[in-house]
Amino acid sequence: MNYPMIRFVLSWVLKVEGLLLLLPCLISVVFREREGMIYLGVAAAAILVGEFVSWFRPENREIYQKEGFVAVGLAWLLMSCYGAVPFVLTHEIPDYINALFEVVSGFTTTGSTILTDVEALSHTSLLWRSLTHWVGGMGVLVFILMLIPGQNGSHMNLMRAESPGPDVTKFVPRVRNTAILLYKIYLAMTVLQMAVLLLTGMPWFDTVCITFGTAGTGGFGILNSSCAAYTPLQQWIIAIFMISFGVNFGFYYLCLCRKPGEAFRLEEVRCYLAIIFAAVLVITWDTRVLYRDPLQGLREAFFQVGSIITTTGFSTADFALWPALSRTILIALMIIGACAGSTGGGIKVSRLVLAFKSLRQELYQTIHPRSVRKIRMDNRPVADVTMRSLYAYLVTYVLIFGVSVMIISFDEYSFETSFTAIAATLNNIGPGMDAVGPVENFLHFSVLSKLVMIFDMLAGRLELFPMLILFYPGTWKKH
Amino acid sequence: MNYPMIRFVLSWVLKVEGLLLLLPCLISVVFREREGMIYLGVAAAAILVGEFVSWFRPENREIYQKEGFVAVGLAWLLMSCYGAVPFVLTHEIPDYINALFEVVSGFTTTGSTILTDVEALSHTSLLWRSLTHWVGGMGVLVFILMLIPGQNGSHMNLMRAESPGPDVTKFVPRVRNTAILLYKIYLAMTVLQMAVLLLTGMPWFDTVCITFGTAGTGGFGILNSSCAAYTPLQQWIIAIFMISFGVNFGFYYLCLCRKPGEAFRLEEVRCYLAIIFAAVLVITWDTRVLYRDPLQGLREAFFQVGSIITTTGFSTADFALWPALSRTILIALMIIGACAGSTGGGIKVSRLVLAFKSLRQELYQTIHPRSVRKIRMDNRPVADVTMRSLYAYLVTYVLIFGVSVMIISFDEYSFETSFTAIAATLNNIGPGMDAVGPVENFLHFSVLSKLVMIFDMLAGRLELFPMLILFYPGTWKKH
Repeated sequence: MNYPMIRFVLSWVLKVEGLLLLLPCLISVVFREREGMIYLGVAAAAILVGEFVSWFRPENREIYQKEGFVAVGLAWLLMSCYGAVPFVLTHEIPDYINALFEVVSGFTTTGSTILTDVEALSHTSLLWRSLTHWVGGMGVLVFILMLIPGQNGSHMNLMRAESPGPDVTKFVPRVRNTAILLYKIYLAMTVLQMAVLLLTGMPWFDTVCITFGTAGTGGFGILNSSCAAYTPLQQWIIAIFMISFGVNFGFYYLCLCRKPGEAFRLEEVRCYLAIIFAAVLVITWDTRVLYRDPLQGLREAFFQVGSIITTTGFSTADFALWPALSRTILIALMIIGACAGSTGGGIKVSRLVLAFKSLRQELYQTIHPRSVRKIRMDNRPVADVTMRSLYAYLVTYVLIFGVSVMIISFDEYSFETSFTAIAATLNNIGPGMDAVGPVENFLHFSVLSKLVMIFDMLAGRLELFPMLILFYPGTWKKH
Repeated sequence: MNYPMIRFVLSWVLKVEGLLLLLPCLISVVFREREGMIYLGVAAAAILVGEFVSWFRPENREIYQKEGFVAVGLAWLLMSCYGAVPFVLTHEIPDYINALFEVVSGFTTTGSTILTDVEALSHTSLLWRSLTHWVGGMGVLVFILMLIPGQNGSHMNLMRAESPGPDVTKFVPRVRNTAILLYKIYLAMTVLQMAVLLLTGMPWFDTVCITFGTAGTGGFGILNSSCAAYTPLQQWIIAIFMISFGVNFGFYYLCLCRKPGEAFRLEEVRCYLAIIFAAVLVITWDTRVLYRDPLQGLREAFFQVGSIITTTGFSTADFALWPALSRTILIALMIIGACAGSTGGGIKVSRLVLAFKSLRQELYQTIHPRSVRKIRMDNRPVADVTMRSLYAYLVTYVLIFGVSVMIISFDEYSFETSFTAIAATLNNIGPGMDAVGPVENFLHFSVLSKLVMIFDMLAGRLELFPMLILFYPGTWKKH
């Protein structure tokens, strides 16, 4: 294991986090809040330590697959553990485990909260919460790739470990340029959403925080009512942007290359939009008795579906009170998740498409035992290694899901609560159903359950293996 | 497709079902019940039609993999559709869909019932219900293998399609002799259980029915209280036999060959017993406030765990009222199921063991990308094709599970009800939780939901593919 290089990457992570912590300081100046001083201190410490450690440059810059996974896993742990500190020091979330839960929920773009009264938080801390979404959405390592030097192969191993989806989309041959391109698209869309929301008359602080939450498909609101207090127009806009950030960024790249035809032929994107369309239709019909105005019913359905499938987790209605069919559809959407290569979480639509295709393939193979037909996606055959890691992912996902539900059942909540609490954290959504519904929070769980959910949020965001590998004894063995 | 051979197999299935229907006739003579005449008529019709159709022997006796799956799928459908007829004709279950649900639940050894008052049924029909469990447990096709002539390869394709587990255990080279051996062990254990229960003073009719339900890991009781009315000693005996029938029959074969050491080294059996031990311990602890007598608590936990993990479904306590942790453990046991090569259902312990091993393998492969280590089970490397079909099975299982829960959610029951109703039917268990708990029944579901659950029961018993292949258009295409 190339420990010096891992140390080097981690020191950069700390430095970047320190720089990010300066943004809340700026906000504290605007709102004249005392919390800013604490954030400044925490930021300065991070930058100083990070700068000092990264001063010793490693001789061997090689990052193999193993180092890539370990570095990403440790980086996210470091970011989370350090990012929780200001909440504790400002006494806004005095308990460290709760603060850790909150910040992990932020970085992993989950949006589950342990806060009963969000509005009691200072603007400084509110901005830090929302900013973690924005950074976590695209990934910190992907950001650092733009800054630190290294071979293309090493960069690829870092990117592969942090990017969501069964396979990494490399738009351009150099990984570093791909990272830059991704962040450019991300930034442009973020600025666009802010501009549009400001035009509708939303206050600028709400605009910034809500946009960060939308872009990262995170879901932390700054009001106790999440997004219910905003105007219908603003809700439509937020919903459309949520769905846009859940689209595979390859789609936008193809559009930028003036290949919209090719973009709209992407199987994953078509399937993603079809699922949204079908879910909105059924839920609008199923909730028709709840909303007298059919347009309101459509809006509530559209917002909630967009929020859940992209794993954002904003809400405008208490969908825990919806009829069983709508609730079950939302639980299914939680697990499906958004597109690969987007900021959304969940299993990802492309994995679902591949799973259906492999089922059809198995039936075909039973009838034609000697055929050698391959599974195809977007008219290209899918590599065997992609299928194998897809299967490993799905099996691991189900195992982690089951074990987690079992452990948090010790808290003796209803099965729907336990099941959806894990669905909401492992898929980085935010709210679940029943006792973890959109108007509830996660404060009431035991410390053990919170630790399990912290693990699940990180495992869900990093697609399981970078977290699991930290707990696998073979990783730390010397050869 | 070799249609004449499929027709031939189906005619034998009808004949065997006719012969089986004569047993309830015998019982009706003992209890002087009028229903016997109807059973006699139905039996005679089946034997006559079956004999007539099987008179035309097919020239080509070859059964390829495709024909094996189709024949098994159609055979189970035929058996079920015909087996429901006597219930309707005796007016004991006048609605055909309900009768079909009940008999499918019987043959698939599920044990879910639509009857509110089981005790109102005639002895004749009660015996038919329980007998379907016994036949379905080991498999009708496996039975017929002993009777009809054919090549070893053709027999293998039938056996593979009907037998549970990731791979078929062939004790002896000839499939036909394996089938005979399996039925001999099965019969011997059934007779042993009957003898032991009679010795404890259980009435003979109860003994016969309960033993059929235990041996097939079915779960139809003949009392509304399932097994709660029997003495503690009888409950212990039933529980021990349930667990014994959930053990891989390869274990008994090795014991018969005087290789007990090898038998107890079978990884699946060890894991199965370990899961039972752990679950009983935790549930005894978790339910300690409910049962004043610790021995009673232990017995209730042992009985329920044995009943659920083997997917039998008898009950001595209303476990839907147990604490959440115990309920979640039971739901997990529902899904895990018994050993492969037993009469039990569920995903099977060996698949779980293989899933865990493939997760460890994936971690190992990430760290050592160039290694070629293979997954091993019982010290033998597992074939790639076994792993691939394991993955296909798991993915298909999750898809069917999800789609089924979604469809029955139209009935607007709680999530726990919908989820466990599908868990109970797809895994061939019987009772679920909440509105389908051990003291409830499945009568209240809509026809659509019942059809979905009928499909799930058959798909669960036949390990998904023989049922799915009937609905795959490619199966019926001419080449």
